[in-house]
Amino acid sequence: MAVTPLYKLFADQLAASIRDGVLRPGERIASVRIASQQHKVSVTTVVRAYELLESRGIIESHPQSGYFVREQAQPAEKPAPRTARQDNPAWQQSTEVDVSRLVLATLKTIQQDGTVPLGSPYPNPALFPSQRVAQYAGKITRNASQSSVFDDLPPGHPDLLRQIARRYLENGLKVDPEEIVITVGATEAINLCLQAVAKPGDTIAVETPTFYAMLHAIERLGMRALEIPTDPERGIDVGALEEMMKTQPVAACMVMPNFQNPLGFQMPDAEKERLVRLAERHEMPVIENAVYGELYYGNAHPSSLKNYDREGLVLHCSSFSKSLTSAYRIGWAMPGRYRAQVEKLKFLNTLATPTVPQRAIAEYLTQGGFERHLRRVRRAFAQQRDLMRHFVLRFFPEGTRVSEPQGGYVLWVELPSAVDAMELYRRCLALGITVAPGRIFAATNRYGHFIRLNYSYPWSREIEQALKLVGKLVEELAS
Amino acid sequence: MAVTPLYKLFADQLAASIRDGVLRPGERIASVRIASQQHKVSVTTVVRAYELLESRGIIESHPQSGYFVREQAQPAEKPAPRTARQDNPAWQQSTEVDVSRLVLATLKTIQQDGTVPLGSPYPNPALFPSQRVAQYAGKITRNASQSSVFDDLPPGHPDLLRQIARRYLENGLKVDPEEIVITVGATEAINLCLQAVAKPGDTIAVETPTFYAMLHAIERLGMRALEIPTDPERGIDVGALEEMMKTQPVAACMVMPNFQNPLGFQMPDAEKERLVRLAERHEMPVIENAVYGELYYGNAHPSSLKNYDREGLVLHCSSFSKSLTSAYRIGWAMPGRYRAQVEKLKFLNTLATPTVPQRAIAEYLTQGGFERHLRRVRRAFAQQRDLMRHFVLRFFPEGTRVSEPQGGYVLWVELPSAVDAMELYRRCLALGITVAPGRIFAATNRYGHFIRLNYSYPWSREIEQALKLVGKLVEELAS
Repeated sequence: MAVTPLYKLFADQLAASIRDGVLRPGERIASVRIASQQHKVSVTTVVRAYELLESRGIIESHPQSGYFVREQAQPAEKPAPRTARQDNPAWQQSTEVDVSRLVLATLKTIQQDGTVPLGSPYPNPALFPSQRVAQYAGKITRNASQSSVFDDLPPGHPDLLRQIARRYLENGLKVDPEEIVITVGATEAINLCLQAVAKPGDTIAVETPTFYAMLHAIERLGMRALEIPTDPERGIDVGALEEMMKTQPVAACMVMPNFQNPLGFQMPDAEKERLVRLAERHEMPVIENAVYGELYYGNAHPSSLKNYDREGLVLHCSSFSKSLTSAYRIGWAMPGRYRAQVEKLKFLNTLATPTVPQRAIAEYLTQGGFERHLRRVRRAFAQQRDLMRHFVLRFFPEGTRVSEPQGGYVLWVELPSAVDAMELYRRCLALGITVAPGRIFAATNRYGHFIRLNYSYPWSREIEQALKLVGKLVEELAS
Repeated sequence: MAVTPLYKLFADQLAASIRDGVLRPGERIASVRIASQQHKVSVTTVVRAYELLESRGIIESHPQSGYFVREQAQPAEKPAPRTARQDNPAWQQSTEVDVSRLVLATLKTIQQDGTVPLGSPYPNPALFPSQRVAQYAGKITRNASQSSVFDDLPPGHPDLLRQIARRYLENGLKVDPEEIVITVGATEAINLCLQAVAKPGDTIAVETPTFYAMLHAIERLGMRALEIPTDPERGIDVGALEEMMKTQPVAACMVMPNFQNPLGFQMPDAEKERLVRLAERHEMPVIENAVYGELYYGNAHPSSLKNYDREGLVLHCSSFSKSLTSAYRIGWAMPGRYRAQVEKLKFLNTLATPTVPQRAIAEYLTQGGFERHLRRVRRAFAQQRDLMRHFVLRFFPEGTRVSEPQGGYVLWVELPSAVDAMELYRRCLALGITVAPGRIFAATNRYGHFIRLNYSYPWSREIEQALKLVGKLVEELAS
């Protein structure tokens, strides 16, 4: 258990060579590929070692030329994308939302066969135990009794409710199955929760950048979005939110505290608690999107806002689409004190969630293996994050900054400010590569030179070549 | 093909016996069970023969005592439930809708194991080829490529869109696959269509009684319902609707022109066309709920409002839940000129409809057998309608009137006016029998002495005994 990982050993050796003067300041060190061949270690090991040395300020990467020993060994500035700042009065204003058309159009391009799905919002489906879930579904269909068709009325199938509650317990949150309402994916859960707590014309506080599904929910219900500055490492600025609440009524707040899409941060526990306490002081409901919660890279499941919720103001939404199977679109809400309203709205919105998928997932969770599957996925994503960060910084021109996700599978990339990411998106598409343009992550016209990249697919020559091409296009657009 | 059905032969023999004086006016004829044994024909045959003779005015049924030769052979008054009439000014007023809580509560009781599901809105699931669809689903899951997870974005999987269009063509309606948007059941389709054409506070014209899902859609969006008198045989009173539209703005109209739930009528073609022309004159969108369209008892698929739609004002909604499988909750909308809005709202509401169910149903439709399956179901429902009508009239007290559904699988029963159907519902439930109280089919406090009965299950001693018990309870409550 306490074995030092290979990449650390390798990094330590390299650090020793530098200390010993074998490698001099300013000198270029072996490329990842060559080092991997020379030392007979995997590309991943080399990349992680280089990342570690970079983070220690021992080496530095020069875009498109490789790694170099630093002139003076000092802590490196982290190349994180810059935060939106509360630097002008426009921040104080809520806005109407109309981003769905653009999002739908870009998502559809991801569907096209043969594209390299760097712009995809979905995790690589090959990672999912779909076969096992499908086998359970088949068995359930064969043995279905006549009454079983009725089990899918809200709140949902009792076995699934129980299994979800059990899973929360394993992750340190005590949940009564009765608190849960099954939905068609987290999308429906978020929609129902928002409708339960606010009405058309109301102002909803959101992170910026924010996952577009949050903006969709606001758009669908004719509400207004108030974008709150959000730190790429600490999440929504609770102080800024509190300030803004003094100037205008805020009906609710929607956040993704763990591994936010697109930033990838994990809000510190203290910030989570601070947000919930603020909500309590103002009786403001908080909708928590927790779909990436299971995809942490750390040692344990991060806490949810729900862990700090004493008054039922947190409406927690999640799904299995990012952790087990997206084919069935099974999600849920734990709406706290708004449970009755959410259950009723679920009934009105889609009547019922299909039975067989609910029971198949419940059976999978009962039989076990979910945690083992997740451990494998988490390890893969953590490695692929390192590779994606490494190669973006290598292939993209100077001025590029990348996030450092703590979970999930997307990277947020700030390009040189001259780059029009929508134009980049279109040029990439012409080459059979998708990227998600930053524009879709805001209600207002922000993030014009940002993109989001998906790293849920195993690293391959195809992905590396695609990324290199994207880097070239970025360079063209930057000049 | 031109073979005379057995029940007609049997009816003709019986009619001849009456004409010949073998059976005299006022004389009791053999009970269904005894006649079935005597003549070695099925109970169904006897019931249909008796029904035919009754409709010809040759015999008559006396509640709880059986069939008798009529005193004078004359056309019988049809025992149809009475129509709500435009007889007081309250008709002119639209109302807020809040019926979902009651509906959800009653639907949940149907879930209880071991109840006799006379109150169920669902067709008997044993009639569905669920196994075959599940086999396709299993095969699709096994062979799923990585890209296949993206196919479920709106408007839906191309194969399914094509198969649905083909099916319409077979039924005489030319549809472009591009007109269709796949949804989570017809419930979501109706919700999206209504949201596309009207806004909170608007008035929506509905049939009365109406299927509660229509009322739910209105309630969910904070609109108002305007109930239009609806004939149990001809459907919504188009003239009355036109009159009411003179007194107030009506944003849209929602109807179920074929085999309406709960009345079971099929609107005459001329009335369908008249409604669409009225809509055209006023640029009023009409939402058509077509979920029972495939369950006709006649010789051919009835026309839809969509057949008369020249200007794209008909938003046609349907699903496979009543005709093929309810386990997957696959529905669709053909929203005419509102297609783009509906597709966008679908995306906002639930993002996507699960892929595997879409592809499994598409595969089923491609492989063939749907029409054969439907013919079997239609035959069964037509026979079971006759049995249910027969036994209701036999077991229920005088003053009971029943609808004569032309398709689908529900019977609308008017009880003696003293009967409180909610109380009946509760007493039945205590005996393990469900009935659907009429109250849930109106936004206003109507149909207090009506119930709806489901006849999709094959006739059995258990159902017959249950119905007898219900009849007894009705009698108690009537006095």
